Amino acid sequence: MPPTQPVPTGVGDVFQLFRDGRPRTKAELTRVTGLARSTISSRVDALLAAGLLRPDGEAASSGGRPPATIAFNPAARIVIAADLGASHGLVAVCDLAGTVLASVRADIAIAEGPETVLSWVVDAALDCLQRSGRTLDEVVGTGIGVPGPVEHSTGKPAKPPIMPGWDAFDVPAFVTERLGGPVLVDNDVNVLALGERATVWPEIDDLVFLKVATGIGAGIISGGRLQRGAQGTAGDIGHVQVPYSRDSPRDAGDERDLEAVAGGTALAASLHTDADPVRTSADVVARLNAGDHLAVDLVRQAGREVGEVLATTVNLLNPSVIVIGGSIGIAGEHLLAGVREVVYRRSIPLATQNLAIVQSRSGGLGGAIGAAHLVIEHALAPHGVDALVSVTAAD
Amino acid sequence: MPPTQPVPTGVGDVFQLFRDGRPRTKAELTRVTGLARSTISSRVDALLAAGLLRPDGEAASSGGRPPATIAFNPAARIVIAADLGASHGLVAVCDLAGTVLASVRADIAIAEGPETVLSWVVDAALDCLQRSGRTLDEVVGTGIGVPGPVEHSTGKPAKPPIMPGWDAFDVPAFVTERLGGPVLVDNDVNVLALGERATVWPEIDDLVFLKVATGIGAGIISGGRLQRGAQGTAGDIGHVQVPYSRDSPRDAGDERDLEAVAGGTALAASLHTDADPVRTSADVVARLNAGDHLAVDLVRQAGREVGEVLATTVNLLNPSVIVIGGSIGIAGEHLLAGVREVVYRRSIPLATQNLAIVQSRSGGLGGAIGAAHLVIEHALAPHGVDALVSVTAAD
Repeated sequence: MPPTQPVPTGVGDVFQLFRDGRPRTKAELTRVTGLARSTISSRVDALLAAGLLRPDGEAASSGGRPPATIAFNPAARIVIAADLGASHGLVAVCDLAGTVLASVRADIAIAEGPETVLSWVVDAALDCLQRSGRTLDEVVGTGIGVPGPVEHSTGKPAKPPIMPGWDAFDVPAFVTERLGGPVLVDNDVNVLALGERATVWPEIDDLVFLKVATGIGAGIISGGRLQRGAQGTAGDIGHVQVPYSRDSPRDAGDERDLEAVAGGTALAASLHTDADPVRTSADVVARLNAGDHLAVDLVRQAGREVGEVLATTVNLLNPSVIVIGGSIGIAGEHLLAGVREVVYRRSIPLATQNLAIVQSRSGGLGGAIGAAHLVIEHALAPHGVDALVSVTAAD
Repeated sequence: MPPTQPVPTGVGDVFQLFRDGRPRTKAELTRVTGLARSTISSRVDALLAAGLLRPDGEAASSGGRPPATIAFNPAARIVIAADLGASHGLVAVCDLAGTVLASVRADIAIAEGPETVLSWVVDAALDCLQRSGRTLDEVVGTGIGVPGPVEHSTGKPAKPPIMPGWDAFDVPAFVTERLGGPVLVDNDVNVLALGERATVWPEIDDLVFLKVATGIGAGIISGGRLQRGAQGTAGDIGHVQVPYSRDSPRDAGDERDLEAVAGGTALAASLHTDADPVRTSADVVARLNAGDHLAVDLVRQAGREVGEVLATTVNLLNPSVIVIGGSIGIAGEHLLAGVREVVYRRSIPLATQNLAIVQSRSGGLGGAIGAAHLVIEHALAPHGVDALVSVTAAD
């Protein structure tokens, strides 16, 4: 397509038909959309010129010359994805299907502040680009998951408890200046939910991802969409108030939030002695892996506490899958067992008869893949594709 | 359009542009969609022939003959809507904007069973049709709200506690045989949420409607959509387990569900004496309206109990509006005061800084209007409009 020719509008709409990955012919598109053959041709040609579609061999023919089939080309562009935890960071370059092409992991504390951490993200991204043989020009955007609440409309962390120096920091502006835009920021549990769904549960529309590590949070996918709520704080299950311990007598009003009862910091404090120090959620995981009976009992009880709040979540949202993740959530099946015990007992039968409660299977790259999908959903939506094609045509 | 001419596909997509009610010209549609003028013309003509669009005067012109503007015509077809409660029923005929054209209300107990109640619905619908001067041919579908859980995929009530005889009854089949289809069934709180949003909060994407009457339930709109969950039981807040009373000491494990603590039946039992009987939620409302101090205190405490679960809901879903409805929820501001007291104290600041907690304002017709919107959303979606236009063209 010559650069001076205007991009036909509706290109992004036609592209949506290819999102399922199945190759199609122009004749099939004409039939399905009811658009004129010439309209389909100009739109498909624009998508081919932009590289978002590619020729895909030949379709079965009813006679004569076999019609050419066309398919989505996930290699057309790339996405930068960053998954930032309390004490680690993972940066990846992915294709438009969310497949990781290169990644870098480092032990980096979020508490070192936004300039330090995001500068590392930028360096790691450039390193991944080089190793995957791609360039910044090919990047359609950067997705970043951070361990705290984010104001969705601006991408700025909003009073994040374990991210000193990050409150209201303009993450998108800082990263856009170095890597280009758009830069989409969300909390780590939301990106974990997106990553788990993309890699393990692509057909599931109602999924809750629960992370139990130093903190506790949930990512909620309902009706096929990540739910962020009005200010982007949806899924903040860690700050739900619960009785201090449901198994012991309590004084009226003696309540804490779930994280203070069942989070990694609280579990470490319960296990800690001067003779045998336990300070972090990583220490708790080490005890679990060593088969420490007290740690196993405490984590199973934490699972019950979490299960109480998840039972309410099941009543409210009726998910078909609850995924348990986070370092403590996947250290053996102790937390899972406690959660299952309470949720299956408490929730109404109709809501639990098809409810799966399982551990995360997306692995260490789940957060980065989810962060990539934040960007992919944006870039491959109809208007996003229109914009990509315009840029290509103007080159 | 002659009946033998095929309906142009994509008609439903063009119709979506008119859903906001604003009149448009064909030139504007051509510009916005990028479709050929002839394509727009054939689609608009099909929609005009089906009556879904109508000429709407003339637009301002830049010179020459003023271009004709076209607008959505809500009077084109009608919807039957039924709002069934524990002890009342309301049937309405609405236009495609959800405006009520005629309605009938009766004291009818859901416990009389599906044949009796649904036969009344059918008779009331035929009565409303006659009074509004419309016919069954013009009906695009029937929406029904019932006071219990419904399996969304089939429209059958699913083990509804206060609807004896209704479990798994094929409501859509029974009603379709008499009024035609489609017949969409949902629980009463979901239709109340839809009705409240349509009439009071059309711009709000995250709204929780809480009904407190004989029972307690919630309708959840997140990300602009009613959330039903995997089996259609989302919003079942009444069966969340809570301590029996949070203000008094309790024994470990002594818990009930929210409805048993704060629902109308529980409140009536607390107020009841042999000398002064209080048996139903209507009796509780009468006491509130009479200014009975004990009733006021109990309902305010019920509001606090409800508020505890709503605080968790706010953490999970971050709505911008919580609407309190149901007969007890709107009898004075006592329940509302208790809810506000707890939710604003408990939830995280970011989630509550823009959170409105208000009483229902959609009035007695809210449920019926919501049931109408169940059908309208279905009938006016792109494929629904394509089907309506096909039928018209084939007449």
